[in-house]
Amino acid sequence: MESTTNQALQSVIWAGTQLDLLDQRLLPEEIVYLPLVTTEDVWEAIRHLKVRGAPAIGIAAAYGVVLGSRDVADGVAEWLQAVKSSAAHLATSRPTAVNLFWALDRMTARAEALASSGADLSSCKESLLQEAITIQSEDEETNRLIGEHALTLFQDGMGVLTHCNAGGLATAKYGTALAPFYLALEQGIKLRVFADETRPVLQGARLTAFELQQAGVDVTLICDNMAGMVMSKGWIDAVIVGTDRVAANGDVANKIGTYSVAVLAKAHGIPFYVACPLSTIDLNTPSGTEIPIEERHENEITEGFGKRTAPVGVKVYNPAFDITPNEYVTAIITEKGIIKPPYNVNLKKLFQAE
Amino acid sequence: MESTTNQALQSVIWAGTQLDLLDQRLLPEEIVYLPLVTTEDVWEAIRHLKVRGAPAIGIAAAYGVVLGSRDVADGVAEWLQAVKSSAAHLATSRPTAVNLFWALDRMTARAEALASSGADLSSCKESLLQEAITIQSEDEETNRLIGEHALTLFQDGMGVLTHCNAGGLATAKYGTALAPFYLALEQGIKLRVFADETRPVLQGARLTAFELQQAGVDVTLICDNMAGMVMSKGWIDAVIVGTDRVAANGDVANKIGTYSVAVLAKAHGIPFYVACPLSTIDLNTPSGTEIPIEERHENEITEGFGKRTAPVGVKVYNPAFDITPNEYVTAIITEKGIIKPPYNVNLKKLFQAE
Repeated sequence: MESTTNQALQSVIWAGTQLDLLDQRLLPEEIVYLPLVTTEDVWEAIRHLKVRGAPAIGIAAAYGVVLGSRDVADGVAEWLQAVKSSAAHLATSRPTAVNLFWALDRMTARAEALASSGADLSSCKESLLQEAITIQSEDEETNRLIGEHALTLFQDGMGVLTHCNAGGLATAKYGTALAPFYLALEQGIKLRVFADETRPVLQGARLTAFELQQAGVDVTLICDNMAGMVMSKGWIDAVIVGTDRVAANGDVANKIGTYSVAVLAKAHGIPFYVACPLSTIDLNTPSGTEIPIEERHENEITEGFGKRTAPVGVKVYNPAFDITPNEYVTAIITEKGIIKPPYNVNLKKLFQAE
Repeated sequence: MESTTNQALQSVIWAGTQLDLLDQRLLPEEIVYLPLVTTEDVWEAIRHLKVRGAPAIGIAAAYGVVLGSRDVADGVAEWLQAVKSSAAHLATSRPTAVNLFWALDRMTARAEALASSGADLSSCKESLLQEAITIQSEDEETNRLIGEHALTLFQDGMGVLTHCNAGGLATAKYGTALAPFYLALEQGIKLRVFADETRPVLQGARLTAFELQQAGVDVTLICDNMAGMVMSKGWIDAVIVGTDRVAANGDVANKIGTYSVAVLAKAHGIPFYVACPLSTIDLNTPSGTEIPIEERHENEITEGFGKRTAPVGVKVYNPAFDITPNEYVTAIITEKGIIKPPYNVNLKKLFQAE
């Protein structure tokens, strides 16, 4: 299936009778949608990283439960059993993806409620499919709201730098940090986006530059070490990134290199924004110090793309994430609005208002 | 030829009857010394980047002149003719390498002086070989002096970050920025070196990490975007880099990413040193603004790992160098000592003292 230019690529598409899943392993060289028709297809796609990004994984899994139960003809009890066994199987696809378990639990709970409601088999199936569609549309809506709030910070003609991929490919649509770029495009606001390639795994080059280019956003790819120079040339008016976890004090964990970008932004007087849904803010983590930093295998650096580029046996330090202290964060943009310092007060307020 | 561990690799070795040249294109995967016996061999090695680094190219070319004239048996006039034609041919190997022309001019001038001195053919040949050896040993001596001065800034147990490759492979021995690491090793001073991999061409991974590892220096490879995090952990006590040109006001042109490292160093209160011979300081360039920045082909970024890692047709910005303004430069370390600000005064003094 060929993608249409000037359309944001979606990673997960429910196509009525099957799930069309964008094979992210082949990006950016090939755009291939895989037709998934069974739970096993979905399990295999999650396991082998054809779909990545926590929200996108959760959405795919929700549809995987639908696929695993839709052919049951015996009765509601058998259908519920199929839902549960599909969910149990999908839960083994990736051991650490939080959104995966969250989506499976939500689907199972909905199926149980439907089964005990006395609804007939056909409407149980229809309502469960609706739940998966709702999970996807809620994610899209959250991201659209993040994008709308973020876009109020940007003006026509601005240059904006982003790091890693907090984009549509990782979510239902829009992404978090990339959401304002898609909305700007829809609204005719011209932004010039700079994408750090984001070593070692190159999510910026392979995914961010790719999905923005596909959508028709003006994007320029640079190496991570060019961010400072590009800022010094006056080309960057703002930085926006996603995050894996925000601590209660506003410290931000994100892909390695984010901290360097934040320090460089501050040195150049450039605002540094973090975009994320409320679900990423963890008030139980007091500060960034408490966030564990995963160290990954050295071969990501020494033979990143099938080619050895460093001596055998050399010592390597390969942290996957870093912590950006709150003093570097100009604002945190959520679906509920733009949060400014002091974060220890204002993040708490955000949840109290719920 | 296998390298010996705990020995700094030399890129150019005069082996009595032939030039043994380390094929830098094969690094870090293979250590292969090519036996060069003719001018044409040397021409080909320079042309095809088997030898890189301006001083190393100049040294190889000087020996290339020796190889092209050593078999002349007819007389001194014929020998001088062979020297000149060898030099003229070698000058076509790389069009823009300043050290190449400088070395060839020096060899030709020496041959002319020898020919008109009345020396016999045998002693002409011997003295010209000596000139090539002198060019090499002078470069080594310059770098050793730079290393000695630089080492006074470091203490046992320090962590030092470097960017790109200003090392022994590019010079006769020691390199400039890497010279203090080799001297520290000789003197039993323990330093922990961090090498930025230096995208897009990965000189830090392929050359710096490699040559330091070969020599037995404690080196850890990181991606460029990890420098800030490593500094924030308190692991870095100093940064030292080489340079392609220093302006009269102390602005420094060096491999892309140097400026980001300098800004990060300042933000963390870490001294930022630049190591170079006097020949790299250009008092005729008033400031960094006047230094042209070469932009290189996008495929260095989009297919740098032998595989396409960015979408076809994406816009790319690929500057090869950046300018670090003098305010970020703690000191410039030359063979004549350590120069501190104000550079517009102190760099001038350095040359007046000559």
